[in-house]
Amino acid sequence: MAVQHNDSRLDRMFFPKSVAVVGASDVPAKWGNLILTSILGWKFGGRVFPVNPNKDTILGLKSYPSLRDIPEEVDLAVFTIPARFVPEGLRDCAAKGIKAAVIISSGFRETGSEGAGLEREIVAAAKEGGILFIGPNTMGIASAHHFFECLPSPTAPGPGGLAVVSQSGNIGLQIIKWIAHKQIGLAVYAGTGNESMLKAGDIMRYLGSLDEVKAIAMYIEGIDDGRTFGETAKEVTLKKPVIAIKTGRSQAGSKAAQSHTGSMAGSFATYSAMFRQSGVIQVTTPTDLINVSAAATHLPIPRSNRVGIMTMGGGWGIIAADECEDSGLVLPALPESMIRDLDPVLPEYWNRRNPIDVVGENDASLYLRVIGALARWSEVDSVIALGIVGRSRYVEDFISAQERLDGKLYSRELKLAILKDQVRTEERIISGVAALQKETGKPIIVVGLTEGGLRLADTSDGRVVCLSTPEEAVSIVAHLAWYGKYLKEARVR
Amino acid sequence: MAVQHNDSRLDRMFFPKSVAVVGASDVPAKWGNLILTSILGWKFGGRVFPVNPNKDTILGLKSYPSLRDIPEEVDLAVFTIPARFVPEGLRDCAAKGIKAAVIISSGFRETGSEGAGLEREIVAAAKEGGILFIGPNTMGIASAHHFFECLPSPTAPGPGGLAVVSQSGNIGLQIIKWIAHKQIGLAVYAGTGNESMLKAGDIMRYLGSLDEVKAIAMYIEGIDDGRTFGETAKEVTLKKPVIAIKTGRSQAGSKAAQSHTGSMAGSFATYSAMFRQSGVIQVTTPTDLINVSAAATHLPIPRSNRVGIMTMGGGWGIIAADECEDSGLVLPALPESMIRDLDPVLPEYWNRRNPIDVVGENDASLYLRVIGALARWSEVDSVIALGIVGRSRYVEDFISAQERLDGKLYSRELKLAILKDQVRTEERIISGVAALQKETGKPIIVVGLTEGGLRLADTSDGRVVCLSTPEEAVSIVAHLAWYGKYLKEARVR
Repeated sequence: MAVQHNDSRLDRMFFPKSVAVVGASDVPAKWGNLILTSILGWKFGGRVFPVNPNKDTILGLKSYPSLRDIPEEVDLAVFTIPARFVPEGLRDCAAKGIKAAVIISSGFRETGSEGAGLEREIVAAAKEGGILFIGPNTMGIASAHHFFECLPSPTAPGPGGLAVVSQSGNIGLQIIKWIAHKQIGLAVYAGTGNESMLKAGDIMRYLGSLDEVKAIAMYIEGIDDGRTFGETAKEVTLKKPVIAIKTGRSQAGSKAAQSHTGSMAGSFATYSAMFRQSGVIQVTTPTDLINVSAAATHLPIPRSNRVGIMTMGGGWGIIAADECEDSGLVLPALPESMIRDLDPVLPEYWNRRNPIDVVGENDASLYLRVIGALARWSEVDSVIALGIVGRSRYVEDFISAQERLDGKLYSRELKLAILKDQVRTEERIISGVAALQKETGKPIIVVGLTEGGLRLADTSDGRVVCLSTPEEAVSIVAHLAWYGKYLKEARVR
Repeated sequence: MAVQHNDSRLDRMFFPKSVAVVGASDVPAKWGNLILTSILGWKFGGRVFPVNPNKDTILGLKSYPSLRDIPEEVDLAVFTIPARFVPEGLRDCAAKGIKAAVIISSGFRETGSEGAGLEREIVAAAKEGGILFIGPNTMGIASAHHFFECLPSPTAPGPGGLAVVSQSGNIGLQIIKWIAHKQIGLAVYAGTGNESMLKAGDIMRYLGSLDEVKAIAMYIEGIDDGRTFGETAKEVTLKKPVIAIKTGRSQAGSKAAQSHTGSMAGSFATYSAMFRQSGVIQVTTPTDLINVSAAATHLPIPRSNRVGIMTMGGGWGIIAADECEDSGLVLPALPESMIRDLDPVLPEYWNRRNPIDVVGENDASLYLRVIGALARWSEVDSVIALGIVGRSRYVEDFISAQERLDGKLYSRELKLAILKDQVRTEERIISGVAALQKETGKPIIVVGLTEGGLRLADTSDGRVVCLSTPEEAVSIVAHLAWYGKYLKEARVR
């Protein structure tokens, strides 16, 4: 490990009060322009100093010939200059007393032996100067509560509880976009690049210590010191969920990973065992990384793998039951007492099984009564509700047909009233689900009727996680249930 | 089998020149209102006759007391009346000479033994009257080239090549919505309901004979006569791809399926073997059903499981390689000749492997050169291109940051020019991919940078299939490659 979790240089890196951009540029599409625009384009409250000897001002700010010329204290230096100039830049940092750096520049180990020599040189320079850097060859970092985004494609993601550590810049950037567009809420992002100094595990430990971080998502290609990573993870996962995708699990993927990061990928089975033993929730696809991380950030962790399912229409229930069994989740049989309790509100021929098929009408009270019965049932620790939201899209389609028909059958007011009615029904369902989730401390995942994947619905009782397909919901529950079981056992030890 | 594929009653059912809606209503949200609105609300060119003894007109059309009172020829009767009145309605059909019916009404076998008796009664009445019906307990049917949509939630899906057969109404409806919103193009939809007369296999055979149907997607819970289905499928899959999801594969799912349709689900392994032997592409999730069906409708079928991958950024390439190996796809090593060919256009340190990481810049010519080299390479039959489209979203985000910054750095015109430039770059890539696809007869799947799943891009050389994640793309290629291999072997036999 390069650092302690309370190394103040990490605070300077992720929550700087002042930043210098070495290689700042006003030429569109250059890295020095992208990064400076990213920092200036949000609501970052700190000072920003462009460094470029060939310009007097850049993007309206005074530009300095060198880091040494900046007259104020600088917490963080960001490098976008060519690799060969970085060693000197780090010596400037040392002279100026700058203790943290983000090295965006590429052209190091990933380009061959000459670059590898340069990489050893910057590590030596940083150590000599007491500087901690992330990178090189990283696309950057961000901390959303601090409105600090130092990335080539600024997204201004809403602040929230999910932290992301990525060993791939492209994948990391894509994850931030998803987090922003799906309003999951970002805490901190760290693209670790070549990790010649700061490792993914160091960042994980630091994130574990930050109150605003509720869950940590990690994209991992290779870890050099698996033992240390595992020990760190064991501590962090007792406090908050860590969700990781380890790529390069196949022979083909592992070869691709070696040529990408230059690191040995190691045996996938070794990684899986290490994750399992240290409580890291392992996923295998980017979609699951996003979905499970979003759910882990916002939902209670179930205490077991037993699930209750309500479905509006049998088909979804069957698919969900299939997926549950494949994922190691258990659907206990309904107790007689619940059957008696639900008999009066469901059609005489209702299936009396888990999944419960409510068959009938679009009735929020009925849905909530059934979901409530499942959530309060001591035999299950998670609930999945299928096919009950998203119907306003169907109603919209119906109104469109009406309008095509002739526009006079329903008055405009009636149409809006119908739609409003449906929207209100769905809001009632979502609020009711949130209240039940809060009351029972069990996650209740909702699967809607339309495409689009993960959606988070806000209510006064917290957030409800909605998906488009049963398989996505089941995958989330299975992963969270695994973590719940791990926690129970780890806390006993 | 209830019918021959050239039974003209099927043409009357799916392509009626005139339709009667028995139980038509002007009360919003009633089935008789939903269905009538659905039929009238699109561009259906045939005559429509509401049947309801209590009304003179419904939705502006003359209403008839009974089917017998309609003065013109009727191709199809649609029943939305309570189950107990359906037998009499079928006798009216016989008297009137109506040969085809859609029985939306529920309250038959799925509700218990009394309903089962009623179901036997309607089958007897239909046989006696020479009537062919679909249902009962179906949500309806549609044929998009005929602008005929007889469904409770009208969607007006764009006409196209994909036909859908669903044993679940809810799932079927959801699939149609996805097809419509993702502009995949629908040919025919059939919700088979209780299948007391027409079976899923009958419809599949009929769809196999229709020129406008390019691929058939099936949602299957249970098939009574697996042998006949398999033999039919064997004929159909020689002409066009059939993609099926069979649910109830787990014990829990199979129990849920039994209580849903009343049919025995049978052993999942038996179904899988039957699908495999008859060339049916089997998928396990609704998302794959949509994705693979869309691809099978629009793309050439690869002749082998060998794949070439280009990636912009290493991470995606690794994930894709992992997924390929898991799915039985092979990534051949690049030949020396291709390496020599690409050396001058890629950075000196390029990985010289499959997946090819193009590392560098946003350059349409470079991408197309590499994709072209892969597509023309005789060792692979499919190509996946990762990370090269969807960047205009990044550029939009960047422009937003500029605007937040102060709105004066770039002129409005410049901003639009930048975005336009990026959009044009992507259009060039997509057109180039379509041309290569046409030239080589190999599918080239594109994976973009943003969420949202499947997207079909139109070009003058045909459609390009774009996805959001490597795993979706690999799953498509793996399923199509399996079918390609099946076809090669089946045609030799």
